[in-house]
Amino acid sequence: MAGNVFIDRLVIVGVGLIGGSLARALREASAVGEIVGVGRTLANLDRALALGVIDRIAAFPEALVGADVVVLAAPVGAMDGLLARAAPALGEAAVITDVGSVKGAVIAAARRRLGAAFPRFVPGHPIAGTEHSGVEASFATLFHDHRIVVTPTAETDARALARVRRLWACTGGEVIEMAPEEHDGVLAATSHLPHVLAYALVDMIAALPEGRRCFELAAGGFYDFTRIASSDAVMWRDICVANAGPLGARLRQFADTLARLGEAVEAGDGEQLEAIFRRAKSARDRLLRERGDARAGGDGPRTEGRR
Amino acid sequence: MAGNVFIDRLVIVGVGLIGGSLARALREASAVGEIVGVGRTLANLDRALALGVIDRIAAFPEALVGADVVVLAAPVGAMDGLLARAAPALGEAAVITDVGSVKGAVIAAARRRLGAAFPRFVPGHPIAGTEHSGVEASFATLFHDHRIVVTPTAETDARALARVRRLWACTGGEVIEMAPEEHDGVLAATSHLPHVLAYALVDMIAALPEGRRCFELAAGGFYDFTRIASSDAVMWRDICVANAGPLGARLRQFADTLARLGEAVEAGDGEQLEAIFRRAKSARDRLLRERGDARAGGDGPRTEGRR
Repeated sequence: MAGNVFIDRLVIVGVGLIGGSLARALREASAVGEIVGVGRTLANLDRALALGVIDRIAAFPEALVGADVVVLAAPVGAMDGLLARAAPALGEAAVITDVGSVKGAVIAAARRRLGAAFPRFVPGHPIAGTEHSGVEASFATLFHDHRIVVTPTAETDARALARVRRLWACTGGEVIEMAPEEHDGVLAATSHLPHVLAYALVDMIAALPEGRRCFELAAGGFYDFTRIASSDAVMWRDICVANAGPLGARLRQFADTLARLGEAVEAGDGEQLEAIFRRAKSARDRLLRERGDARAGGDGPRTEGRR
Repeated sequence: MAGNVFIDRLVIVGVGLIGGSLARALREASAVGEIVGVGRTLANLDRALALGVIDRIAAFPEALVGADVVVLAAPVGAMDGLLARAAPALGEAAVITDVGSVKGAVIAAARRRLGAAFPRFVPGHPIAGTEHSGVEASFATLFHDHRIVVTPTAETDARALARVRRLWACTGGEVIEMAPEEHDGVLAATSHLPHVLAYALVDMIAALPEGRRCFELAAGGFYDFTRIASSDAVMWRDICVANAGPLGARLRQFADTLARLGEAVEAGDGEQLEAIFRRAKSARDRLLRERGDARAGGDGPRTEGRR
C-alpha cells in the first residue's frame, strides 16, 4: 500500500471530529507518510496520538515548516488568525486547504493573510459531520459517500486543486466544485438556517413557564427536529457570523414563508395549509427516493414519543 | 391470559398506525375479547384482517351497537362527523375515546354531538407515532414507555375514565392526566409548531431557483430536521385547523424569537448568538440526560451528509 503515498507530511490543524476522521481515512488508504497533529488542547492531541490518529504532536505554526499539505480543520472563526500565523511558515510548494462551513469569509481571510501563497490555498468543505466533537468522535468512514465541496477561485493553482481533490477522493467522498457564493447560499438554506431554527425552538420552549411540561411531552419528532441544537455553540456562532449575509437573507425568506403559513392557520384556511404540506412532503419524499437512500419512502420505523 | 379480558367487544374506528398498534398491543395483553375494525378504505381493513390485527370488519355506525369500548382513531378533522353518526348507535354503558392530537376541538364536538353520552367520552392522545400511516406500519410496542395523555372534563364519568386508563396501561404506555387547554398549548409548541416549521423549510427550498442544488447538498441534519415534513398532509392540515388558536400563538412567539436571532445575525452579534445557542444546547442535552435516554449526551453516531 506504500505505493499510494502521495503526501509525505500532512499537518492537521485541529484534530477533532473532521480533522481526526480525515486522518483516519487517509491512513487507511495509505495515502500519507507522516501525520502531524496541531491543536489548542493538549489533552485532545494526546488522545489522538494514543488512538494512532496522528504520528506526532507539534506546535503551531512551526509544524508547518516542511509540510506538503496543511489542513485547517478549525472553527470558521479561528481561520483568520490561523492563516495569519501560518503564512510565514508555509513552504514554497506547500498546499493549504480548510474544511470550513463558510467559504466566502475564509477565502477573504486567506487572500488577505497568505499573500503569494494564496493560489495554493484550496477552499474546501466536506458536507459531513455529527453533532459530536473531538477526536474520540472521529471515524474513518465519516466521509464515505458524502459530498466534499471545493470552491476554487480564479487564482487557485491547478496542481494544488488536484492534490486536494485527490486527498478527499481517498476518503470515499465525492468531490464537487462550486463557486464560493453558490456554496454559501446553498448551505445557508440547508444547514445554517435549520440549525438556527432548531436552536430558536428549543430556546423559546425552555423560556416558557410551561417549558418543563413541554419537554416532558416532547416526542420523537421533536428530538429529531432539534438534534442539531445539540451542536457546538461556538462553532455555530462563528458560522452564523461568517455567513451573515446569505444566512440573513434566508432568515428573511423563511420569516415570509412562516408569516404566510401563520395567516393560513389564523384564518383556518385548510386548503392553503394542505397545499403547502403536500408540496413539502412530495419534495422530501422525492428527494429520498432519488438518493436511492435506504430510507426512501420514509426513514425507517422511527417512533415519535419517549423512546 | 383470558382472565385479563376486561373489554368484551372493542370497536376501532380507523385501523391505521395508531388504531392498528393499539389493537395489536391489546391483543398481546389478552385484554380484549373481540376487536372490530371500521374504516373508510376496505383494502386497509382487509389487510388488518389478514394480519390478524382485527377479528372482523363492520360498517359504521352499525358496528357500535353492542360495543363496550369505541376508539376513534381517525384524523382530527373527521371527528365531528364520526361523533355525530356514532351518537345514536352507542349503547347505554359504552365508553368512547379518541386519539386526536388536539383536545379542545374534539371535546367541543363530542359535547355537541354525544348529548347524554358525553360523560362517557374520554378524550385521549397517545404521544406516539411515526411519519408512516396505515395498518402495515402498526406494531404492538408503539406505545411502550410513551406518554398517553387523557384530558377528562368536569363531566367525565369516573368509571369511563378508569376504563380508558386501564386500556392504555395495557399497551405499556404511561398514562397522565392534563387539562385540555394545557395539552393543546404544550403540543402546539413541541409537535404542531415543529411540523409547520419543517414543512415550511422544505417548501421554501423547493421553490428556490437553486432548490435542486440545495437538496443535492443536504446533510443528515437536514434530513432529521425535516423528517416530520414527510408526515401525512391531510392529518396535519386538520390538526393545524383544529388547534389554530394555540398554534397561531406559538407561531407568533417563534416569529419574535426568530426576528431577534435575525437581528443578531445581521448585526454580527456573536455574543448574543452564542448565548442563545448555549442555552438551547444545554436545555436539550439536559433533557436527554434526564430521560436516561440511550441517546443522552448526544444521539449516537448519526452522520450529517449523504448516507
